[in-house]
Amino acid sequence: MFDVVTLGEAMIRLSPPNYKRLEQATSLDLVVGGTELSVAIGVSRLGMKSSWVSKVPNGPLGRLIVNKARELGVDTNHVVWTDEGRAGIYYVEFGASPRPSAVIYDRKYSAASMMKPGEIDWSFLKDVKLFHTTGITPALSPTAREATLEAIDAAKKAGCKISMDINYRAKLWSTKEAEATMTPLTEKLDVLFTTDEDTWRVWNMKGTPEEIITGLKDRFHIPVVAITIREIVTVLKNRWSSMVYADKIYKSKRVYDVEIVDRIGSGDSFAAGFIYGYLNGDIQMGVDYGDVMAAYKHSIPGDSNYMAKDEVDQAVKATSDLRIQR
Amino acid sequence: MFDVVTLGEAMIRLSPPNYKRLEQATSLDLVVGGTELSVAIGVSRLGMKSSWVSKVPNGPLGRLIVNKARELGVDTNHVVWTDEGRAGIYYVEFGASPRPSAVIYDRKYSAASMMKPGEIDWSFLKDVKLFHTTGITPALSPTAREATLEAIDAAKKAGCKISMDINYRAKLWSTKEAEATMTPLTEKLDVLFTTDEDTWRVWNMKGTPEEIITGLKDRFHIPVVAITIREIVTVLKNRWSSMVYADKIYKSKRVYDVEIVDRIGSGDSFAAGFIYGYLNGDIQMGVDYGDVMAAYKHSIPGDSNYMAKDEVDQAVKATSDLRIQR
Amino acid sequence: MFDVVTLGEAMIRLSPPNYKRLEQATSLDLVVGGTELSVAIGVSRLGMKSSWVSKVPNGPLGRLIVNKARELGVDTNHVVWTDEGRAGIYYVEFGASPRPSAVIYDRKYSAASMMKPGEIDWSFLKDVKLFHTTGITPALSPTAREATLEAIDAAKKAGCKISMDINYRAKLWSTKEAEATMTPLTEKLDVLFTTDEDTWRVWNMKGTPEEIITGLKDRFHIPVVAITIREIVTVLKNRWSSMVYADKIYKSKRVYDVEIVDRIGSGDSFAAGFIYGYLNGDIQMGVDYGDVMAAYKHSIPGDSNYMAKDEVDQAVKATSDLRIQR
Amino acid sequence: MFDVVTLGEAMIRLSPPNYKRLEQATSLDLVVGGTELSVAIGVSRLGMKSSWVSKVPNGPLGRLIVNKARELGVDTNHVVWTDEGRAGIYYVEFGASPRPSAVIYDRKYSAASMMKPGEIDWSFLKDVKLFHTTGITPALSPTAREATLEAIDAAKKAGCKISMDINYRAKLWSTKEAEATMTPLTEKLDVLFTTDEDTWRVWNMKGTPEEIITGLKDRFHIPVVAITIREIVTVLKNRWSSMVYADKIYKSKRVYDVEIVDRIGSGDSFAAGFIYGYLNGDIQMGVDYGDVMAAYKHSIPGDSNYMAKDEVDQAVKATSDLRIQR
Amino acid sequence: MFDVVTLGEAMIRLSPPNYKRLEQATSLDLVVGGTELSVAIGVSRLGMKSSWVSKVPNGPLGRLIVNKARELGVDTNHVVWTDEGRAGIYYVEFGASPRPSAVIYDRKYSAASMMKPGEIDWSFLKDVKLFHTTGITPALSPTAREATLEAIDAAKKAGCKISMDINYRAKLWSTKEAEATMTPLTEKLDVLFTTDEDTWRVWNMKGTPEEIITGLKDRFHIPVVAITIREIVTVLKNRWSSMVYADKIYKSKRVYDVEIVDRIGSGDSFAAGFIYGYLNGDIQMGVDYGDVMAAYKHSIPGDSNYMAKDEVDQAVKATSDLRIQR
Amino acid sequence: MFDVVTLGEAMIRLSPPNYKRLEQATSLDLVVGGTELSVAIGVSRLGMKSSWVSKVPNGPLGRLIVNKARELGVDTNHVVWTDEGRAGIYYVEFGASPRPSAVIYDRKYSAASMMKPGEIDWSFLKDVKLFHTTGITPALSPTAREATLEAIDAAKKAGCKISMDINYRAKLWSTKEAEATMTPLTEKLDVLFTTDEDTWRVWNMKGTPEEIITGLKDRFHIPVVAITIREIVTVLKNRWSSMVYADKIYKSKRVYDVEIVDRIGSGDSFAAGFIYGYLNGDIQMGVDYGDVMAAYKHSIPGDSNYMAKDEVDQAVKATSDLRIQR
Repeated sequence: MFDVVTLGEAMIRLSPPNYKRLEQATSLDLVVGGTELSVAIGVSRLGMKSSWVSKVPNGPLGRLIVNKARELGVDTNHVVWTDEGRAGIYYVEFGASPRPSAVIYDRKYSAASMMKPGEIDWSFLKDVKLFHTTGITPALSPTAREATLEAIDAAKKAGCKISMDINYRAKLWSTKEAEATMTPLTEKLDVLFTTDEDTWRVWNMKGTPEEIITGLKDRFHIPVVAITIREIVTVLKNRWSSMVYADKIYKSKRVYDVEIVDRIGSGDSFAAGFIYGYLNGDIQMGVDYGDVMAAYKHSIPGDSNYMAKDEVDQAVKATSDLRIQR
Repeated sequence: MFDVVTLGEAMIRLSPPNYKRLEQATSLDLVVGGTELSVAIGVSRLGMKSSWVSKVPNGPLGRLIVNKARELGVDTNHVVWTDEGRAGIYYVEFGASPRPSAVIYDRKYSAASMMKPGEIDWSFLKDVKLFHTTGITPALSPTAREATLEAIDAAKKAGCKISMDINYRAKLWSTKEAEATMTPLTEKLDVLFTTDEDTWRVWNMKGTPEEIITGLKDRFHIPVVAITIREIVTVLKNRWSSMVYADKIYKSKRVYDVEIVDRIGSGDSFAAGFIYGYLNGDIQMGVDYGDVMAAYKHSIPGDSNYMAKDEVDQAVKATSDLRIQR
Repeated sequence: MFDVVTLGEAMIRLSPPNYKRLEQATSLDLVVGGTELSVAIGVSRLGMKSSWVSKVPNGPLGRLIVNKARELGVDTNHVVWTDEGRAGIYYVEFGASPRPSAVIYDRKYSAASMMKPGEIDWSFLKDVKLFHTTGITPALSPTAREATLEAIDAAKKAGCKISMDINYRAKLWSTKEAEATMTPLTEKLDVLFTTDEDTWRVWNMKGTPEEIITGLKDRFHIPVVAITIREIVTVLKNRWSSMVYADKIYKSKRVYDVEIVDRIGSGDSFAAGFIYGYLNGDIQMGVDYGDVMAAYKHSIPGDSNYMAKDEVDQAVKATSDLRIQR
Repeated sequence: MFDVVTLGEAMIRLSPPNYKRLEQATSLDLVVGGTELSVAIGVSRLGMKSSWVSKVPNGPLGRLIVNKARELGVDTNHVVWTDEGRAGIYYVEFGASPRPSAVIYDRKYSAASMMKPGEIDWSFLKDVKLFHTTGITPALSPTAREATLEAIDAAKKAGCKISMDINYRAKLWSTKEAEATMTPLTEKLDVLFTTDEDTWRVWNMKGTPEEIITGLKDRFHIPVVAITIREIVTVLKNRWSSMVYADKIYKSKRVYDVEIVDRIGSGDSFAAGFIYGYLNGDIQMGVDYGDVMAAYKHSIPGDSNYMAKDEVDQAVKATSDLRIQR
Repeated sequence: MFDVVTLGEAMIRLSPPNYKRLEQATSLDLVVGGTELSVAIGVSRLGMKSSWVSKVPNGPLGRLIVNKARELGVDTNHVVWTDEGRAGIYYVEFGASPRPSAVIYDRKYSAASMMKPGEIDWSFLKDVKLFHTTGITPALSPTAREATLEAIDAAKKAGCKISMDINYRAKLWSTKEAEATMTPLTEKLDVLFTTDEDTWRVWNMKGTPEEIITGLKDRFHIPVVAITIREIVTVLKNRWSSMVYADKIYKSKRVYDVEIVDRIGSGDSFAAGFIYGYLNGDIQMGVDYGDVMAAYKHSIPGDSNYMAKDEVDQAVKATSDLRIQR
Repeated sequence: MFDVVTLGEAMIRLSPPNYKRLEQATSLDLVVGGTELSVAIGVSRLGMKSSWVSKVPNGPLGRLIVNKARELGVDTNHVVWTDEGRAGIYYVEFGASPRPSAVIYDRKYSAASMMKPGEIDWSFLKDVKLFHTTGITPALSPTAREATLEAIDAAKKAGCKISMDINYRAKLWSTKEAEATMTPLTEKLDVLFTTDEDTWRVWNMKGTPEEIITGLKDRFHIPVVAITIREIVTVLKNRWSSMVYADKIYKSKRVYDVEIVDRIGSGDSFAAGFIYGYLNGDIQMGVDYGDVMAAYKHSIPGDSNYMAKDEVDQAVKATSDLRIQR
């Protein structure tokens, strides 16, 4: 019934408007964010059926989170509702050179961190094409780690492809803990998404993008390893591209100059675009859709990618056109 | 050096604008709130020197809280800064009849709840006229209860008058726990602030305002017992008055019709006004300043009372004048 | 698969903030509105499964409308997407006495008005408990009238109960046209929702609420006739109740004093609450849930009712309690 | 060429949103205000040709003021532009019971206060029906007083009717100064607008509205004396009516209950409505249009009256109808 | 009486704030826009007398449009008011690289599109120096095309210079229709404004700017052909210049680096600046004022150019100075 | 008791949001600004004790100014409160290339300009490390000049180091008046802050930064001369560095590319950072802290520097890192 199922936490994201620092705030903009939800949204925007699985607190903030998933076409019928725990919050301070943007987490004791095995009947993974999660979910708590393993095993058994984004978060676990957990998980993957920073933090591997994905593939025998490449020209101007190693190296058709409105969720947009292209075409189509989804995400406020499918299709085909669209 | 010292938690208060429900919010208005801080602010607005004591998390949200206290003239040099715990949050949904306003707490694991005895050098209470706290502080955690007791004992020893507002919070403790803790505390007080609901919840006492304050005085032998009386005509229109039992019953000079912009903090404004009048005049002056501070608070957004001293002085003297002031 | 299916247009609703007149606007608040969508949302909030059927323009405004339905748990898989027509708009100017609120429609040539028979496969009405529409849908255009008739016939055939709200709109058709169309439709209904004004405009019937519903029942032989009763004390303060005639007259348990934040959609909230109570209990339960849903709607901005089921359950049981909820 | 010409200062009006006190403001809403400009706007909204005369500082704030006049159809070709002086500012704090709204002036050294005789070629008053100013203009400065006298004499000579609103402002002059200036001016008037407070402040006259206007007429031999009557039920709810003494006493057809969004400019709206009705009909028509313009003004943010002529015509004819207008 | 008269539609422009996509909007910023109105405003800002002619719907949106014209000094006495048709709307989504800004029109069935010959008494064109319209006006509808022709003929007869901006809009007509209408119109012009894209779309002509204006001049024998040249470095950073062919080629004195706040209306600002310089000086002065007006427009929100005449005069003379102005 | 004391005016700063021009404003953002207050705030943020001295008007705007100082940890006990004069205002229009940002002052007749000698008991300067003011304070009025001289003499006598920022303001005095006043003052300084423009305006000195600071040191025998160097790439992108001449030339460790959110107060942030580094370390530490404080200020809205001490410490040590901080 679903093409893609993702598992992870979504949070209330609060950010002061107009580049204010948190300490200056008299109001906070509110959106919903969370990497696995963002991936489920991304593939839904591209016309696939997706379901997002999580544990969510009863009450208005939990409803607000689930509403946002539904608004963007993501199924939430497998979400677990609970009276335990709170809605995780994360604050974003938007920066401008030389002050980088900053994320401050207040996610401890969240409902999602109280996930545990046995709560979800994973039998609905039958006929699902791909199961996606990230390194954040097992880092939330020991029980969440077990729940993640349970889900991955269920996905494997159901014949789903499995993809994962490392998404190392220093506030959640040490690099040692991350390595201990991520190493066996990674060996089960069909698709790994990473960045140079994540690979370095978790496995202490460094090098060019090509060396990193080659190294990861050799070490973990993953069929597909994707790396996203961000050149930070200034805080408000980056350059985006990616590279994937499957049977061979696949590269971005172009490097995207991005003027940054909100870069949060661009990696998730890449994952969503890649999954779409990969499942509906081939690796290069995955790279192309991933790049467009990611590059355009930088121009869209919030974690969620509000591109329409026809816009993405057209951008994948197009050469650059920055003229006003009338 | 200070006239009044208060002890308790302050939180980040987040509320959707324009009567939106939390579930509809795309932005949240942010102010700082907390009953004991509000009392410290209230007496500061009336020209007294006050210091607010608490435990506050390092980082921008902790600084934001302390900044607000300082902005309104409250000393914060005895605040304890910590890396433990988070900034407590509370959400307010403003209602209109028949939907009452609602407060949703997310204050668990806060830095303030991690207060413990021995953290604060209470020797600065020497020469302080009055120490104030509320029933919320001992309800935050077992260690916070001990810290509250330590503070009250230090205040007693330093010769301060001691006042307390019951402020029963069902989300923090049961009525039984409240009674067990509040009963011995109450016996140490010079001034008790209550409402009919609080008295009923903690001691199961009911009756007219006069019966309640008489009953409390008789039972706990407190020199001064003050009760605030709110008649809820509609959600947006209330009637405010108060009554105090000391050597005799003191009553409000008038009942205030209040059109509600934000009623949170009106009880704290009463306490601040009462303390000001009581310490600088007599019980009736306390009632009069308490009533004006409380009644006007309903018209001011946020927890803090932004009345100026000359405005309050004038309102205490005046008969009602609702004409535009030019 | 669905409990309730509704058919009708949803529009982009634009309103100047802070009681500004449209002519003063430099920004407009945007929500999605439409009576049949609001009913589908209302029953979804109360835990029933609902689907909303309409014709919606391709593009961002059409997606925005469908997103809002999905956000609030309403199925949109039977919506027809089209390149014809535009997204209807309606402007709301919020007033205060003596200036009433005003609605200005710009809905001509909308995609929904281009509905025609044969576009929707109504076979999914099988097992649906109730089909709901209003007098607006047949008024949109001649083809929309035919599409409405087609839907009602399909619902009849599928064994659904059928409910309708008159919702006379003078901007869409004359009272004569309304009467000619509504009269035969009304005879097919299981439940009719009306107001004194609507009955007077369409059928020139006047009288007390009791006379009106008795008159309607006698004339059209409808099993259930519901009338909502609004006493306009001032623009910002109304009194709400209702009355239903089925086997006998059922009345509101209380009259609700409502302080108006946004009264649009209160009739739809009544319909949703009534449908919920009626399908899950009995007529009186319908009246009670209808009244609570409607009365509380006045306090919620936008057309959609953001009450949670447990809040409504509690309000139905409760006597009035306007104290702040902590 | 013009029906009505008015003379006086317009200012930048700044007010904190959402009932905030000025001390809490992080932003201020900006409109343009000034009683004589408001009257010129009011008659323009009712379809008459009006010109507003003033002295305005070169630069963006002066342009902003003139733009607002032009936006609302008022001619500004006789405005004097200057490099002297500043744009006057006034701050409004909106209150709720028991806190009245407050106006704080920062108008000293304004360009308008530097008006002096000889700056304006008043020959354009030929064929003008009515010249209007208020007691504020001569109070701005000694030279402004002379300029006001010059204008009134020119109007007299040109055959205009002359109307004046007392508008006593304690911040600008003492009651003694006001009396000395206003007394001879008043004797030249065709129409005087006042309130009980203004009459009491300037001439120490008290009494019922009827006594006041009778007293004024007797004392100053003014053809038409109008008094506006405001009953302040609460800060946010007033009752409005008026009374005029010409050949006999004319009274309001009804007393208007007004829910206050922004009451500033309601007196000016009365004057505009009265002038319209009086010049185009008779005294009673003046009362009726004055009352509607004034009553509805309370519901409109800003100093300017954004009612449309057809709305006012209809309201004058109508009995009260507070239902939503669709 | 007027220096410049323009003819065309103005619309309500709605845009989500802060780079949001339309689908994300919960509020929309509202300004008034329309190319011919923008030109009338531009020349008015530069001190010339202008009148804007159009057909506008009765009601608040029509008044809002006319108010904006008046606010900025443009005469609207020749506007035709009507009960037919609606106020056209256009939505703007502001982008950032790689997402271009987008305009979405909802202008069908507008009052302006219902313009027809015979509605306007063009005799007021006597003594007018220049009549301006654009390729949008004849594209609105067949009757609007006839009305445009009527106006141009009247202008010709009255001895006005005639200028036109091609402004090809693919949503309004095909390139074929545009060519068929624009070709004969163009031959009547004194001044033609174009861009490389417009020339290519309408006449399939390509080349360097110099080749294009030479080609147009040769083909249509227009005295003055102006082309504006935009180099799109990124969505938020462009480079602006222009070139005019009259007796010889005139070029921009400098290329302007523009940081884009809102580029809509920059072509109209060029036209206004050019017309001002051309009518008050010579072609080079036209180029210089056109460039400054256009370049600075990019920094100003909304369609209208809020530069003051003295600022423009100074910028025309100045070499670049980007220091803060105190 | 204080490390640093500063003397000068603070004003209400009003700016239209979103790059609007003042003439377009319907609301204005409000912050508090003033160079000497900003320096006091800057050193307070870095952990030093500071007091700001000024003359402030009684009333809400005066309180608002003092509140802001207190919020950011600055002592205000030596501020003089007065009934004379107004709160100075300054308007900021934020620009984008080619339109520079603009400051428009409305500070005449301010309370601060009415400072005069003898109002402040400067004995509290004992044990203060450094007294700071700028060329604005003596320029406010003749009495303010005398008050500045009095303060500097008192500081000298108390053994404070004295620093001054030239901050030439053409709206306040001529270059001649500035030179006459500043020359003798400058000879008393320990630290002079300047820019190339200020040196050129006041003393007609030009040259490279190195030549300017060498020239100033030679001419006035000041121990430390600091110059800040701004390269204006575009209005929204500058490059920042500085240079100091003490025993030798000290230079910035790097040139900072700054993306401008709000550049006002960056010079004050440099002064604060320099004073901190200089008093707690050495000249190079002064340069380094000054540069970081100034460069980061560009990214923070408002005049005040909301950097935290640990952020600044880290940035001084760090090489550039623009990655998002999680």
